Amino acid sequence: MNKIILLNNRPTGKPQASDFKFTDENKPEIAKGEILLKTKFVSVDPYLRGRMSNAESYVEPFKLNKPISSGCIAEVVESKNESFKKGDFVSGSLDWKEYQVSNGKGLLTIDASIAPLSTYLGILGMTGLTAYLGLTEIGVPKKGETIVVSGAAGAVGSVVGQIGKILGCHVVGIAGTDEKVAMLKSKFGFDDAINYNTTKDIKKAIATACPNGIDVYFDNVGGDISDNVHANINRFGRIIVCGAISAYNETSVPTGPRVEHFLIRKSVLMQGFIIGNYVEKFPEGIKQLSKWLQEGKLTYTETIVEGFDTIPQAFMDLFEGKNTGKMIVKI
Amino acid sequence: MNKIILLNNRPTGKPQASDFKFTDENKPEIAKGEILLKTKFVSVDPYLRGRMSNAESYVEPFKLNKPISSGCIAEVVESKNESFKKGDFVSGSLDWKEYQVSNGKGLLTIDASIAPLSTYLGILGMTGLTAYLGLTEIGVPKKGETIVVSGAAGAVGSVVGQIGKILGCHVVGIAGTDEKVAMLKSKFGFDDAINYNTTKDIKKAIATACPNGIDVYFDNVGGDISDNVHANINRFGRIIVCGAISAYNETSVPTGPRVEHFLIRKSVLMQGFIIGNYVEKFPEGIKQLSKWLQEGKLTYTETIVEGFDTIPQAFMDLFEGKNTGKMIVKI
Repeated sequence: MNKIILLNNRPTGKPQASDFKFTDENKPEIAKGEILLKTKFVSVDPYLRGRMSNAESYVEPFKLNKPISSGCIAEVVESKNESFKKGDFVSGSLDWKEYQVSNGKGLLTIDASIAPLSTYLGILGMTGLTAYLGLTEIGVPKKGETIVVSGAAGAVGSVVGQIGKILGCHVVGIAGTDEKVAMLKSKFGFDDAINYNTTKDIKKAIATACPNGIDVYFDNVGGDISDNVHANINRFGRIIVCGAISAYNETSVPTGPRVEHFLIRKSVLMQGFIIGNYVEKFPEGIKQLSKWLQEGKLTYTETIVEGFDTIPQAFMDLFEGKNTGKMIVKI
Repeated sequence: MNKIILLNNRPTGKPQASDFKFTDENKPEIAKGEILLKTKFVSVDPYLRGRMSNAESYVEPFKLNKPISSGCIAEVVESKNESFKKGDFVSGSLDWKEYQVSNGKGLLTIDASIAPLSTYLGILGMTGLTAYLGLTEIGVPKKGETIVVSGAAGAVGSVVGQIGKILGCHVVGIAGTDEKVAMLKSKFGFDDAINYNTTKDIKKAIATACPNGIDVYFDNVGGDISDNVHANINRFGRIIVCGAISAYNETSVPTGPRVEHFLIRKSVLMQGFIIGNYVEKFPEGIKQLSKWLQEGKLTYTETIVEGFDTIPQAFMDLFEGKNTGKMIVKI
């Protein structure tokens, strides 16, 4: 039998176990032109929370009682398609199923000899591309400028900081535990990092860590933390609005200080970033990230949990900050 | 004697008469290289409110007990500077004084035969340039797109709408009286206009007036009105944050729905606009605006009040919406 995870309820507030339903079906069979895939790695990401709601967004909402999908790495275990052969590994958006059939459309064959398979969900996948393209396409940091990253110990944030350092910037991260703060400095080379849970005056701490103000803010979290970053932004600052995990589980739009005033006063640009808008830049991005990875200039962290049945819990743990770096489920 | 208006207090909330002080001095005399200017027209603008506060901003705050300054048109009544002759008219940032001395730096000689003098404070001055450069540099509207303008009957707003129509866009304005709404449609050619004071469901009214959604939002007001516009914005929308008059008199930063969510969901760009950042584009802008004005494609409205002593009241009236189009004091 073939296990599947369906969306059982649209979550209200934080997702919970009862929002997911396990079911099974007969192991599928393939027809001409198709391949049979065995799921090896599943990426769980905060943005999936948005797709579980029924709200209009840049990707279609998941359907109730249908399989949830996300970025996955799978092995081709049977092929009736000339472009794929048994033993190939592919990455792409796949259903949360142990086995599934595909016609190969949208799948990318990946080379397991260059880097571990899971990196194609992380630093050489959407995570790395989000960090690289968000920072360079919207942030456009210049050497010597200051970059602040929120959610800095997260999958995207830790890569943003490293790229910032490669580009010659002063980089400051914001994260939620002393462990993460220490890691940002020791492992990822951030110039400074701030624990938002234990720092009394975050605005002042940011000002101290950024003596020349902030030119680029890569925002993964939104909320109060961002208010304190905004207060320190420089004239002509650029804000990459990449995520707002602080609000994903809110049932209504949260309120906060209006931004219009500082946007005008400081001539600041604030732009929503979605990796899907930059597909034509993926090859360039992967090439650059692979080069830096091979040169030893980039490192990464994964939180890998095991077993198909743990996928919902791994997803829920994202909202408790239990992951360090990319959260991946190994099947 | 020579009358002068000084900043007496930094306003708290709405500016009031006691924030201004009238004084006088002897009529100044000029030295070699200088000119004596007689003020003819004074521009009063919402952004001056910001300069009356002590907050850090893109221009220096006014000093207490020193003259306030703004865009003015003056006549050269005496000249010991080769670049100016008696009878010339100039525009530039000048003090609120009946007469003043200048070395000519930063002053532009203007041609009274092309258009009335006051237009150089309005449609051929900062107002027209703000509309033109804000719309084209940040908004980048494409033919067939929909533009919404808040503060549409204001000096900048009415020009934005007309340029939008010249560029082949669907243009909808938001204003505060039925008179203004009627004028936007009849005089300035807006496709539709909404009275925010009498419309019960503004969000719905905007949706009805913009059947294809909103691609470009030229925001002069901020606040609740903008929340309702944001709710109707299209994917890849551009928001020119040009003014936030709704908040200029607030004593603390007003709160409202956080914007990060819709910026991400719709891949929207939101950018603070200040005309001073685009000085190198002024000649191109004035050329284009003059051309459209001479071709009869642009029209404008001024509210002209008379007398040096009325300057503070004219400024205060801006925050009551008493002006239609550019507010100017004729001396």
